[in-house]
Amino acid sequence: MTGVTWQAIHEARARIDGITHKTPVMTSSTIDALCGGAVYFKCENFQRTGSFKMRGAANAVARLPSAERAKGVCAPSSGNFAQALALSAKLAGIPAHIVMPSDSNPAKVEATRGYGATVHFCEPAHEARESTVAQLRDRLGLTLVHSHDDLAVIAGQGTAICELIDERGELDLILAPVGGGGLIAGTLVAARHLLPDVEVIGCEPAGADDAARSLERGERILDFTPDTIADGLRTPLGENTFAIIRELIDEIVVVPEKTILPAMRFIWQRMKLVIEPSSAVAAAPLLNRQIDVAGKRVGVILSGGNTDLSNPF
Amino acid sequence: MTGVTWQAIHEARARIDGITHKTPVMTSSTIDALCGGAVYFKCENFQRTGSFKMRGAANAVARLPSAERAKGVCAPSSGNFAQALALSAKLAGIPAHIVMPSDSNPAKVEATRGYGATVHFCEPAHEARESTVAQLRDRLGLTLVHSHDDLAVIAGQGTAICELIDERGELDLILAPVGGGGLIAGTLVAARHLLPDVEVIGCEPAGADDAARSLERGERILDFTPDTIADGLRTPLGENTFAIIRELIDEIVVVPEKTILPAMRFIWQRMKLVIEPSSAVAAAPLLNRQIDVAGKRVGVILSGGNTDLSNPF
Repeated sequence: MTGVTWQAIHEARARIDGITHKTPVMTSSTIDALCGGAVYFKCENFQRTGSFKMRGAANAVARLPSAERAKGVCAPSSGNFAQALALSAKLAGIPAHIVMPSDSNPAKVEATRGYGATVHFCEPAHEARESTVAQLRDRLGLTLVHSHDDLAVIAGQGTAICELIDERGELDLILAPVGGGGLIAGTLVAARHLLPDVEVIGCEPAGADDAARSLERGERILDFTPDTIADGLRTPLGENTFAIIRELIDEIVVVPEKTILPAMRFIWQRMKLVIEPSSAVAAAPLLNRQIDVAGKRVGVILSGGNTDLSNPF
Repeated sequence: MTGVTWQAIHEARARIDGITHKTPVMTSSTIDALCGGAVYFKCENFQRTGSFKMRGAANAVARLPSAERAKGVCAPSSGNFAQALALSAKLAGIPAHIVMPSDSNPAKVEATRGYGATVHFCEPAHEARESTVAQLRDRLGLTLVHSHDDLAVIAGQGTAICELIDERGELDLILAPVGGGGLIAGTLVAARHLLPDVEVIGCEPAGADDAARSLERGERILDFTPDTIADGLRTPLGENTFAIIRELIDEIVVVPEKTILPAMRFIWQRMKLVIEPSSAVAAAPLLNRQIDVAGKRVGVILSGGNTDLSNPF
């Protein structure tokens, strides 16, 4: 039994309707010819704030009881969740406080502030982050929204695959990247309900393959040092996401680091989509033939498009 | 009286249906907030072969009498039209011969060959190109399809704005880039029919402002040396496109060169769309406030997305 139900995803969808975008589904005859399947790319790079994270953040903010809403939300994040929570809070008219390591990318700090959040810096270490968040919560009465292990966040992330299935019908296989596990966990719960026979494969970069190793070992591996170009996938699994993945997933594919940027470049070049390396991790197994999809209908979640344009490859 | 009628565009639309893509229309709340209007971007970067050129090429090929079809088509082009004509011919099952200067971008040569065309090289000078094309036509009985001044090509290019208006309804203003003039000419004929009151502005890079100067002088300026980053817009106007533009256009806006790459970068960064510099020429006047669109509904044709990814900005 998992902590996220189909009902929660179904309700999330109604709750975030009009707050998040219904993102387009794109196809490429070149990619279809290359891999022999029919591939449907769910383009969360076009989501508000540039990634799927907006879905979960918007759902979590919308579900807050009114007393908590008034005080505001906080989260530690130096990545896409920071912007997603900042915008979700802004749209709900409530304060957001984001804790970022002092060595964060200045562009991401500015973007987060641009959505109206207050940014608090901390030393770039796990303990410093936790204590800064704890202090803020105590002082301001903020509600912590965990970027990938909050159940409302996971439910929100499950809405992307619902839209894809609604639009394109039955699928044989679904591919999504695995970082902290929020996207793949939400996708699993939704897909198992909507398409009981679909195969769902999580895609993990070789330089942060903790999910594959955690499943193998039967317990979460938390003590590892990620070394991957896919900066959105460096986080270990959460307690809730691990439980859901463990129960529902068919397979984790570990994607060689050297295939990630070529896959990203291919998608930019041929599909004209700006995607970030984490998104390319879910497309790479098709392009490098790690997974055989001949004759299959395949859904791929392109998770986001926030990447440095100056020197992308 | 122009050489391209609404009827020709209407027929082109039916003719190329299923051969070309109905490309998506994208919006950006950031850009709307910045310029105070509602801007609808027609994404021809997602068109087959990566640019709007596919529309005109497909229409011209489809209109060929069967005796001419059997022999095949030819055109001089080192840019997007080469690939568009190559694929259109391939889909029609007829030969295509493309004449390219010997110093052409190897990636574009490969892409053109990839669509099944035979590439013939010539010296990189106007006369050499013309004589190589003439020899090919004589020897093989090929039909020349002019990249922007063929009436069937112009009619095909007019179909993009039809789709945009169908999808998003009335517009106050339309912006499209101006190179050889095929896109803006087709757009003008279609827009004048569908929305008699719409304002249509052609956008030209400062380093190839022959259309603006030609209109001012009342005759085509052919003798100029383009110096613009917008490599798709270096061609002088054709005889037919000049006549149409002269009769129907509201204004040509000359876009400063230094605003083109920043506009391109902005669209990549915020809209996650890979567009080429020529496309950015039509977006730049909104971003740099050259044109006031406050309160207006604006259609912008993003003409294509074929650009070098290694060092884009």
